[in-house]
Amino acid sequence: MYRTHTCGALNMSHVGQPVQLAGWIQRIRELGGMTFIDLRDRYGITQLVINEDTPADVKTIAETLGREFVLSVHGTVVERSNKNPKLPTGDIEIALSAIQILNASEIPPFTLEEPSDGGEELRARYRYLDLRRGPLQRAMALRHSMTQETRNYLSQCGFLEIETPFLIKSTPEGARDFVVPSRMSPGQFYALPQSPQTFKQLLMVGGFDKYFQIVRCFRDEDLRADRQPEFTQIDCEMSFVDQEAVLLQFEGLACHLFKTVLQKDIPTPFPRMTYKTAMETYGSDKPDIRFDMPLHEITHLAGGTEFALLSTAEYVGGICVKGAATYTRKQLDQLTDWIKQPTVGAQLLVYARCSTGEDGALMYKSSVDKFFNQEALHAWGRVMGAEDGDLLLVTSGPREATQHVLGTLRLEMGDRLGLRKEGVFAPLWVYDFPLLEWDEETERFYAKHHPFTAPKPEDVDALFSNDRNRLAQVHANAYDFVINGTEVGGGSIRIHNARVQEQMFHVLGLSKEEIDSKFSFIIEAFRYGAPPHGGIAFGLDRWCALFSGHESIRDCIAFPKNNSGRDIMLDAPSGIDPAQKKELGL
Amino acid sequence: MYRTHTCGALNMSHVGQPVQLAGWIQRIRELGGMTFIDLRDRYGITQLVINEDTPADVKTIAETLGREFVLSVHGTVVERSNKNPKLPTGDIEIALSAIQILNASEIPPFTLEEPSDGGEELRARYRYLDLRRGPLQRAMALRHSMTQETRNYLSQCGFLEIETPFLIKSTPEGARDFVVPSRMSPGQFYALPQSPQTFKQLLMVGGFDKYFQIVRCFRDEDLRADRQPEFTQIDCEMSFVDQEAVLLQFEGLACHLFKTVLQKDIPTPFPRMTYKTAMETYGSDKPDIRFDMPLHEITHLAGGTEFALLSTAEYVGGICVKGAATYTRKQLDQLTDWIKQPTVGAQLLVYARCSTGEDGALMYKSSVDKFFNQEALHAWGRVMGAEDGDLLLVTSGPREATQHVLGTLRLEMGDRLGLRKEGVFAPLWVYDFPLLEWDEETERFYAKHHPFTAPKPEDVDALFSNDRNRLAQVHANAYDFVINGTEVGGGSIRIHNARVQEQMFHVLGLSKEEIDSKFSFIIEAFRYGAPPHGGIAFGLDRWCALFSGHESIRDCIAFPKNNSGRDIMLDAPSGIDPAQKKELGL
Repeated sequence: MYRTHTCGALNMSHVGQPVQLAGWIQRIRELGGMTFIDLRDRYGITQLVINEDTPADVKTIAETLGREFVLSVHGTVVERSNKNPKLPTGDIEIALSAIQILNASEIPPFTLEEPSDGGEELRARYRYLDLRRGPLQRAMALRHSMTQETRNYLSQCGFLEIETPFLIKSTPEGARDFVVPSRMSPGQFYALPQSPQTFKQLLMVGGFDKYFQIVRCFRDEDLRADRQPEFTQIDCEMSFVDQEAVLLQFEGLACHLFKTVLQKDIPTPFPRMTYKTAMETYGSDKPDIRFDMPLHEITHLAGGTEFALLSTAEYVGGICVKGAATYTRKQLDQLTDWIKQPTVGAQLLVYARCSTGEDGALMYKSSVDKFFNQEALHAWGRVMGAEDGDLLLVTSGPREATQHVLGTLRLEMGDRLGLRKEGVFAPLWVYDFPLLEWDEETERFYAKHHPFTAPKPEDVDALFSNDRNRLAQVHANAYDFVINGTEVGGGSIRIHNARVQEQMFHVLGLSKEEIDSKFSFIIEAFRYGAPPHGGIAFGLDRWCALFSGHESIRDCIAFPKNNSGRDIMLDAPSGIDPAQKKELGL
Repeated sequence: MYRTHTCGALNMSHVGQPVQLAGWIQRIRELGGMTFIDLRDRYGITQLVINEDTPADVKTIAETLGREFVLSVHGTVVERSNKNPKLPTGDIEIALSAIQILNASEIPPFTLEEPSDGGEELRARYRYLDLRRGPLQRAMALRHSMTQETRNYLSQCGFLEIETPFLIKSTPEGARDFVVPSRMSPGQFYALPQSPQTFKQLLMVGGFDKYFQIVRCFRDEDLRADRQPEFTQIDCEMSFVDQEAVLLQFEGLACHLFKTVLQKDIPTPFPRMTYKTAMETYGSDKPDIRFDMPLHEITHLAGGTEFALLSTAEYVGGICVKGAATYTRKQLDQLTDWIKQPTVGAQLLVYARCSTGEDGALMYKSSVDKFFNQEALHAWGRVMGAEDGDLLLVTSGPREATQHVLGTLRLEMGDRLGLRKEGVFAPLWVYDFPLLEWDEETERFYAKHHPFTAPKPEDVDALFSNDRNRLAQVHANAYDFVINGTEVGGGSIRIHNARVQEQMFHVLGLSKEEIDSKFSFIIEAFRYGAPPHGGIAFGLDRWCALFSGHESIRDCIAFPKNNSGRDIMLDAPSGIDPAQKKELGL
């Protein structure tokens, strides 16, 4: 036996008891002839003490110890003279009677404290050491609690977790598949699933009306910041449901997680917003509604001057930043530089400070005083709800791009003013997405969500019209779940009719042959009594990061890849044996 | 909305209520001017009735219906005149007021009844239809319950479920890896994990002292009967434990599953048996102890005659089959043929029937009366515990091979005599496995369990001896969990010392370079304070098959591969786009 208690268990109620603990040495301190050792495990830290009463052999061993050595120790719980109220075990210490070194340790390449002095690359290489640190220990525990509570909730609601295969068929539509060469069928390949989408739909056809799975998915993408080639989804599907039933069911799941994982009560129903409103009001399809500051269109109030960037723009709009009239010229210049940088992409930033004049009436000082008189600026201010002390920020350009710029500016101002408060959670449903997106470059439609998403019943005729303008107007029964400006989940009601599914593939430019070779199994399945169904998938890594307050999903994954898709610790991917290559016919 | 109740919910307490149900048509019967429709969903079957009072439009729609059509119906719950006590809903039926056809169905290619008339291949091709059948519906529900209860139990014991990566490094030791070509690092490959073995050990090094994961694993093997290229493990690891602690912990898990999934109380502690005893007594390292019938060695009683197959054999042994003296000559000839077939592999079968002679004493009639007199046969019978009416079956050959033959014969006789009772569960721990197995062909040692298994502390010196005879005697702290003759799980205490791990690889014939390139990460990890640790992994597919009474694990997997590793429904593996091949540098 190695221990009777963990390093987080002992307190005043144990004083006088003989105990055995096991763990890692966090720190050794010498103080006035005494030695204090902080012994650490997953559950806490307990102070071991070596003093004049300690047996000589224990003292001898103690002199050989170092950081991160693994010990099993015997001793007696005693009350500390110098208590540490910050530690749950801070009232006691262990007077040692025996030490066994279970394993020695070389000096770790970085400090294993709450914030580490190790760089990202170094910590990735020694991930098993980084994982000993508090932030990662807590992140893994939170992730466990997220998945366990998800399973508890959904099981209680009658969902079955059903595993779907990882070695499947390559159907590159959307991202690129990772493929797996088959040794038994040379020249042929399995693919790793980008999601279990078609399988969960087949399970609905198979009569399992409530399915979920917490499941790994794979996408061979050029990695953008904070994407992983493998990631985990909470994948869900239901039969005999409409959109309303799906939203209510998973609002329930979200509330359960808020409550059980974060001990937070979130009021229901969650706010809902159409895609159109979200774009017009927040310049984003995943608005952060922890703070207000909506977008306002003033195109109709910005014409008629020689200031062409405003008067000829398709769209002019702005935000009213409460209490920010104090922004200095220098701050505004900096903001102008910020908005013009390529990653944001605006051409100008117009501002107007709103204040109370000597006559007690509102007045504006703007960067476009030359073109717009007080009357004109008052008209802006009225639309934007300006009050004394507010700052109006305005820009212009093509409608959607400019809304997006203003949405980004809104988040930036929210950050600068501290309106995006940590620990505050504002969930939101965004719905009524367009079904299709036209791509100018390839001159074809892409599925906004995925090709299995159903058009709204009233738009089915338009889907069959083969008229580009009408197709662009088709709405989907699709919805996203957003928390604090992050898309945490997305789903839709699916197509369950073989004819509609074939037409959808046709609209997406697939030939009859392509449809047959890639998707015949699901179209055929729809011919044998497919029920109406729909579902949703949540990004677990992202949701965990959000709940644990980590910026990067890498901090919520035990063994993540770096931004080049490599595992630094394993040195993977790597070369393989020529014999194996040959066996695979490569 | 599609339904107010499921098809398993309604009974006499609902009579008179208006309800809405949705589901599939199981059967339509016409009877004396009335039409009865069995509507089915995951929860049960409810009878719908159409009679003279049914609205005309409903009658019209009803005439167009067929098997497996998907309906949503409105109606009123009424008491049946002709009740069906076999159905939970058998007291009531629904008098229809409205029918909506949600989807039509072509005629299914096989019947979707409890036993189906479809062949294996046909059912695999239409797996989504096969999944609608009761046996598969129940198997999926049982599997969900197994995983959910496993997670509940282990979570309550303080285990964290931690996900490990699927895109890892190829380290072919044991079975063959599936590999995944990397597009970003052309010429390099990820491998899919054969198990998360090294990751769970790194998690122990990372301070997570109780880990589990229900996780997919991959092995590119030439498929034997009932193996799958991807399968699911309940993977577990603990720090600061010895073998005893591991066995007790997972005996607890097994009892929890027996209790919650099968409502069975299994007495503890489970029986334990050394590998040596298991081989000697049952001719198997995974004995079915639902019945007795042990092996007995009689080598010392079988010599001294001219019957060379017995007198010169390394090992002669047999079993005493209770009450089988009634076996006819024909049955015994058949058994002789059976034991000589190549898959069993014996050279002979000697029998001796034990009966009571006219003098009231035991006497034997044997197939070797020419060589062995009554006195000799009595000596056999005493060793084997023969009584009146028993049948002794004896064979000979090399020790281990012959024990194995007798083990197989024992199971065969158990089957023939109905001693392997369905619904009876006899769990067993087998322990004290040898660490290494010598392979004559390649002239090297292989790890009996895997290369991370620790030798018993008293055998560490022998591991360093580099003496083949001493190495063959090294025992491991390894254990298997067996139920009814099936290996359900296996594990070990692991090596946590870098020097021992290096020596183990050395004994397995790996060069310094191979160790460095494949396993440096774990050996390095052991240098930074690796705790003593050990664990176990259970085969979930197999355990589910055992609990649900299915012969094949395929019946407990939603979308299994066939015996050639193909997914018949998807037609995978398959060719991929030449452009994608080129991108991957293949």
